[in-house]
Amino acid sequence: MIPEHMVHRLIRCALEEDIGAGDVTTAAVLTGQESGTARAVAKADMVLAGIDVFRQTFLLLDPDIKFTHCLEDGRAIKSREILAELSGKLASILTAERTALNFLQRMSGIATMTRQYMAAVSGTRARILDTRKTVPGLRSLDKYAVRVGGGLNHRFALYDGVLIKDNHITAAGGITPAIQRARQKISRTLKIEVEVRNIGEVREALAAGADAVMLDNMSPEAMSEAVRLIGGKVPIEASGNVTLANVRQIAETGVDYISVGALTHSVTSADISLLVSART
Amino acid sequence: MIPEHMVHRLIRCALEEDIGAGDVTTAAVLTGQESGTARAVAKADMVLAGIDVFRQTFLLLDPDIKFTHCLEDGRAIKSREILAELSGKLASILTAERTALNFLQRMSGIATMTRQYMAAVSGTRARILDTRKTVPGLRSLDKYAVRVGGGLNHRFALYDGVLIKDNHITAAGGITPAIQRARQKISRTLKIEVEVRNIGEVREALAAGADAVMLDNMSPEAMSEAVRLIGGKVPIEASGNVTLANVRQIAETGVDYISVGALTHSVTSADISLLVSART
Amino acid sequence: MIPEHMVHRLIRCALEEDIGAGDVTTAAVLTGQESGTARAVAKADMVLAGIDVFRQTFLLLDPDIKFTHCLEDGRAIKSREILAELSGKLASILTAERTALNFLQRMSGIATMTRQYMAAVSGTRARILDTRKTVPGLRSLDKYAVRVGGGLNHRFALYDGVLIKDNHITAAGGITPAIQRARQKISRTLKIEVEVRNIGEVREALAAGADAVMLDNMSPEAMSEAVRLIGGKVPIEASGNVTLANVRQIAETGVDYISVGALTHSVTSADISLLVSART
Amino acid sequence: MIPEHMVHRLIRCALEEDIGAGDVTTAAVLTGQESGTARAVAKADMVLAGIDVFRQTFLLLDPDIKFTHCLEDGRAIKSREILAELSGKLASILTAERTALNFLQRMSGIATMTRQYMAAVSGTRARILDTRKTVPGLRSLDKYAVRVGGGLNHRFALYDGVLIKDNHITAAGGITPAIQRARQKISRTLKIEVEVRNIGEVREALAAGADAVMLDNMSPEAMSEAVRLIGGKVPIEASGNVTLANVRQIAETGVDYISVGALTHSVTSADISLLVSART
Amino acid sequence: MIPEHMVHRLIRCALEEDIGAGDVTTAAVLTGQESGTARAVAKADMVLAGIDVFRQTFLLLDPDIKFTHCLEDGRAIKSREILAELSGKLASILTAERTALNFLQRMSGIATMTRQYMAAVSGTRARILDTRKTVPGLRSLDKYAVRVGGGLNHRFALYDGVLIKDNHITAAGGITPAIQRARQKISRTLKIEVEVRNIGEVREALAAGADAVMLDNMSPEAMSEAVRLIGGKVPIEASGNVTLANVRQIAETGVDYISVGALTHSVTSADISLLVSART
Amino acid sequence: MIPEHMVHRLIRCALEEDIGAGDVTTAAVLTGQESGTARAVAKADMVLAGIDVFRQTFLLLDPDIKFTHCLEDGRAIKSREILAELSGKLASILTAERTALNFLQRMSGIATMTRQYMAAVSGTRARILDTRKTVPGLRSLDKYAVRVGGGLNHRFALYDGVLIKDNHITAAGGITPAIQRARQKISRTLKIEVEVRNIGEVREALAAGADAVMLDNMSPEAMSEAVRLIGGKVPIEASGNVTLANVRQIAETGVDYISVGALTHSVTSADISLLVSART
Repeated sequence: MIPEHMVHRLIRCALEEDIGAGDVTTAAVLTGQESGTARAVAKADMVLAGIDVFRQTFLLLDPDIKFTHCLEDGRAIKSREILAELSGKLASILTAERTALNFLQRMSGIATMTRQYMAAVSGTRARILDTRKTVPGLRSLDKYAVRVGGGLNHRFALYDGVLIKDNHITAAGGITPAIQRARQKISRTLKIEVEVRNIGEVREALAAGADAVMLDNMSPEAMSEAVRLIGGKVPIEASGNVTLANVRQIAETGVDYISVGALTHSVTSADISLLVSART
Repeated sequence: MIPEHMVHRLIRCALEEDIGAGDVTTAAVLTGQESGTARAVAKADMVLAGIDVFRQTFLLLDPDIKFTHCLEDGRAIKSREILAELSGKLASILTAERTALNFLQRMSGIATMTRQYMAAVSGTRARILDTRKTVPGLRSLDKYAVRVGGGLNHRFALYDGVLIKDNHITAAGGITPAIQRARQKISRTLKIEVEVRNIGEVREALAAGADAVMLDNMSPEAMSEAVRLIGGKVPIEASGNVTLANVRQIAETGVDYISVGALTHSVTSADISLLVSART
Repeated sequence: MIPEHMVHRLIRCALEEDIGAGDVTTAAVLTGQESGTARAVAKADMVLAGIDVFRQTFLLLDPDIKFTHCLEDGRAIKSREILAELSGKLASILTAERTALNFLQRMSGIATMTRQYMAAVSGTRARILDTRKTVPGLRSLDKYAVRVGGGLNHRFALYDGVLIKDNHITAAGGITPAIQRARQKISRTLKIEVEVRNIGEVREALAAGADAVMLDNMSPEAMSEAVRLIGGKVPIEASGNVTLANVRQIAETGVDYISVGALTHSVTSADISLLVSART
Repeated sequence: MIPEHMVHRLIRCALEEDIGAGDVTTAAVLTGQESGTARAVAKADMVLAGIDVFRQTFLLLDPDIKFTHCLEDGRAIKSREILAELSGKLASILTAERTALNFLQRMSGIATMTRQYMAAVSGTRARILDTRKTVPGLRSLDKYAVRVGGGLNHRFALYDGVLIKDNHITAAGGITPAIQRARQKISRTLKIEVEVRNIGEVREALAAGADAVMLDNMSPEAMSEAVRLIGGKVPIEASGNVTLANVRQIAETGVDYISVGALTHSVTSADISLLVSART
Repeated sequence: MIPEHMVHRLIRCALEEDIGAGDVTTAAVLTGQESGTARAVAKADMVLAGIDVFRQTFLLLDPDIKFTHCLEDGRAIKSREILAELSGKLASILTAERTALNFLQRMSGIATMTRQYMAAVSGTRARILDTRKTVPGLRSLDKYAVRVGGGLNHRFALYDGVLIKDNHITAAGGITPAIQRARQKISRTLKIEVEVRNIGEVREALAAGADAVMLDNMSPEAMSEAVRLIGGKVPIEASGNVTLANVRQIAETGVDYISVGALTHSVTSADISLLVSART
Repeated sequence: MIPEHMVHRLIRCALEEDIGAGDVTTAAVLTGQESGTARAVAKADMVLAGIDVFRQTFLLLDPDIKFTHCLEDGRAIKSREILAELSGKLASILTAERTALNFLQRMSGIATMTRQYMAAVSGTRARILDTRKTVPGLRSLDKYAVRVGGGLNHRFALYDGVLIKDNHITAAGGITPAIQRARQKISRTLKIEVEVRNIGEVREALAAGADAVMLDNMSPEAMSEAVRLIGGKVPIEASGNVTLANVRQIAETGVDYISVGALTHSVTSADISLLVSART
């Protein structure tokens, strides 16, 4: 689901960052001929995400490593479960270990938190969206992990969606001129989403022809009023300081989407270890 | 302090990731000629880190942007403080905004947490170390932010330090053979640090000539015993599931260093906004 | 309007392609100290596009070259008009000449042809769109030149728009299942455009919830019927074998957009020369 | 015949340009498991060129795609002929389709036009040469396609041949000083070709020791006179505003080579479609 | 032992440097279908190093080339010995020949000279170290070849070891302040090596806590005195104008390491030829 | 004279190779604010080459460094002469020092040896040529240094000259078929040089139409005979095991060019030091 050229490039960069001129410990301690197996083990409950990135990290370093077991992304994992088992040259396994885990732990952390948000809004019409508040360079992985956790992706970047935010409105001199200028310059095959901060702005955005609105940091009461006012004519996204504590209340206002920056900007790494056994 | 070629490459990659074929919203809403100012404002207390990366993100996109105010890295910031003020073409400011903030918020989050750990051990001999559990590709920024927060950097990567961990010991067939092999292959101008899990392994590591030991996941009592046994002959690092809740207890055992993976693997983004004012 | 990192990368690649290990003729014939001026002259009527790429090609090779005159993109040029005048080291000018012209002539060729299409449909509601039938690597320049000529850009690439074409429909087993699957997987903030080949398919696409339709290779009569049927509910694009000879007839059917592959896949280079004068 | 590192790099760039963060339509419409076949079909007569680039575009995206049929470059194709047949995952085929066709249609367009020029001069001693008026970045493919069409390549770039053009002569202060300087600085194992505009300049170039001359924009009568004057002592190239209409007349003057910029600067894309069949 | 991503990148760069737009001689002289064998033959005694780089150069150009014979790195070779035998397409072999030999001849030259230095100090405690005086871009290969010849590697680069040299001491205002500052800023898990020029500086370095000393350009008598003074407390490296003529005398002073810049900055290429046989 | 994009890329690669994640010694020992001057001093007689690469190495790391003195390439230098003087931040100067010297010492070593060869043949018609036996990646610098020393460059790479060597002749089945095939495939604007090993082969090459011959490893007597036989009809290059001891004898046979592989494959680094003075 992530273009392979992106994944390979990210893995190569990460391996080069960590290996550079060589893994001096492994070169000093091993002969290079030892072989054995290794198991990635969950040390807490989690949603697994990134197992293919994990696997390819080892394979890009050493194509002769074999994976004899590999759980699939999206699976709910219990603590102590074995996520993957691999075998091959121990030198390769030890050199790739940290890089592979760094990817897997971040991605599983994102998927785990996304699923918690999805669970919190279950039964409502609201879907959880991510944002562009990702770690520089890793957006494709961060957004993939959100999908694995059950969230939907908002636009990927600045190039694939028109989202007029408060700073754009300030710069353009108001909601109405911003929407009007956009309408002239872009084809009607694109939607225009506009950020609004109160009911007055909702009205202005609708009147100016917005195709979708983002309610920014509004109270649940105001959001409910906006939902009634809009009456299903355009999709509604809620945004701003969303937490697991308040997401259900927001969802119950009837919005279509809730975007959560913390999914990717404040990730808690999933706890996963790699345990090596030497071949006897 | 971070080599400029690294910083520039990271910023360029991040800008390209977000801008790609172009910022369609800014192109649709602005004429490109609007100018104005913007302020980066803290929305919580924090330690500032990454202000130069933030600044260079704007400048690499548009060298004509001017910074009229810029606080320095390492400063303790109060909520609502203005971190930086810049002016220039609004199109450039809006296009670079998210990328610049993504760097600054992560780096300040790392520095803020590092300083909390440093404060927690103040008055003891222990210093806080980071690990290689960083986000792939951003290690130089993550480790810089740890230094800004008052921590020390452990080795940067696999190439600049010998650290024999449990998986190496398994692969090599024991602590003693691992240290012996390493001693033969590397020059005596390098130190050898060894991970140990109990007092018996501490004794073995010392006997085999380890230049430093890392106590992995040992109880405070066992750590205290290790400190007494080692008696200052080699530096001691404590590692494994360190939290703000337990770090002081670990420090009071008398270890020299405490390494904390969470500093970089589970970052809470610092809350910072950019507010734009159009020129009238 | 084109992100500068893209333009600079394209120019650098092009200069390296042409210069490689060095311009042996210039090195053999000049001392390197000669200076002078050069004029880019139109040898036919055209719409100018790419003058900034032209300018930056010289400047990336030699930042000391000065431009004393430069017409702006979008201007209608008469044969023999001087498009730009520059001065500096002749060695630099001669080395960059062909690369700079190769960009400028292609881009002006695209803009010139786009304006001819725009003129042909003037007075109708139809706007001219480009396609993804661009030269590999140059899409950002090709699409910019279309805008300069007065056309609108369709999606830039596969990542910034949902366009379900005939091969997707074949693969998905029909228009209705294709649209339904898409609707489930993407957020409602994106539009879905569907390619249709006859009135029956128009009906199916509308019924299944298409947000826009592309009429592929339909006769003018069928297009007129489709326009009536759709009645303004969704935007309509006409596509397939559009030429300057038939574009007006298509436009008069009432479609909103007409996409023209030949704008970028079959470009006639604009005729432009560079004339050098040595300084005396 | 084209170095593989060049071809692969070009294909990778082109795929990344078109796929970027992902093919959203294919991801939305297909499950990713559908397989089937596709046929590339000529929709007009043409000379085929670039079939290996076409093939490798699919294979670099998905190495499991199989080609069951593939015509060879250089073959004269009739309209409706099947150029290639491939099978595999439909998602891969649909994602690579446009990029693969963009290469194949341009290259076949170049080969087709080159063969038309070759046919026009058949029976004369003249051979058709290309120029450096290629699309930036694609010169190796453009020049390969000229060879497929039966043309000869002139120098590839600025680094592999000495060609003293009118602007060099202006800068050097005349034909004689230009040739003399070049002779001193380069080894005698290189030839020196000089552009001349009239009979007087032909005489000067020969007297100064030119190894080859390029007659620039001369009338057929003047070219005939130049051919007689030179009498076979050095190779002669004709250049400037060559078209299919006037190329035979030029060839009949007895020149050795005729260089045609339009072969690569004003390409008419060959008309080729890809038709997909889903596996039942 | 050298990270594969480094080796492959170096080989690719070298092949591109030499092949560029294509091997015009091979393309002109061969049909491309000829196959045959080639032998790499030593034309002088040497220590072999780089045979895998040699092999991979051919394989990266053409994966179908087969190596039927290949001696291993580190082996003492007699003149006329066959180092490797390969077979496959002659066009590929001829195109890769010079690049492959350029690597192999330099690396074997380094290993051969290193072994001469090792032999010259045999029986003493001294080990031969390399320096950072390598050819830009090839450090990983240069240092690997030193290891093959029996030498030890000093630090790889500026990032993996603290070595305070005379210019640092000048800049810091003396040996003592330099060591003190370093001790404060770096973790105790790193060693500090200091360059000293006389006995007084040896004393100062030891007193300030240096973990290793480098005796720079000292006379054998002074070195002997330094060895006695240090008495085994820290490792000692001798440096400066070491030659095969004086290295034994230096070794006999009792130093632990002797670093030799000439191993990599003044390499004599090993004499190796490739002889091709066409298949009959 | 070397394209700037090549020089900058080489310097950047070399700086990154040496600096990587950071210069730990300089960061540990200096505050970063110290400034001062440095002088590059020759420690032996030499021909200077590469001073601009040396200068740009410092400037690419720190654009604020100032050069107050800089001798020009090609100058004959006496031992103890000051080659360049620079001032600025000492941290920058110390970090760039080794990389800058590695370039300068190699290039000056090449120029110095080239001038010795030129002096050895002075008064004869012979000119000294280099070969493709350069260090991978540095060919543009190596060949530039040869020019600085007074030598001429042979072809740069495989793409810019036809040189049929013994292995090509073996593969093609003889000198005559090799030349004939080449003549058919390449334009007459290119010369064909052929390697020959005896008088018989000289005759065959001339008869087959070679434009230049390379006498490979022939005795002086045989070379003299070849010169007489050829009688000035084509340029003659002598090649194979040329040394300073035998080059004059070869030159006196009357050949036009003598190519010397050792100029670039067995370089003796020029002895140059950088001496820093802190500002008081």
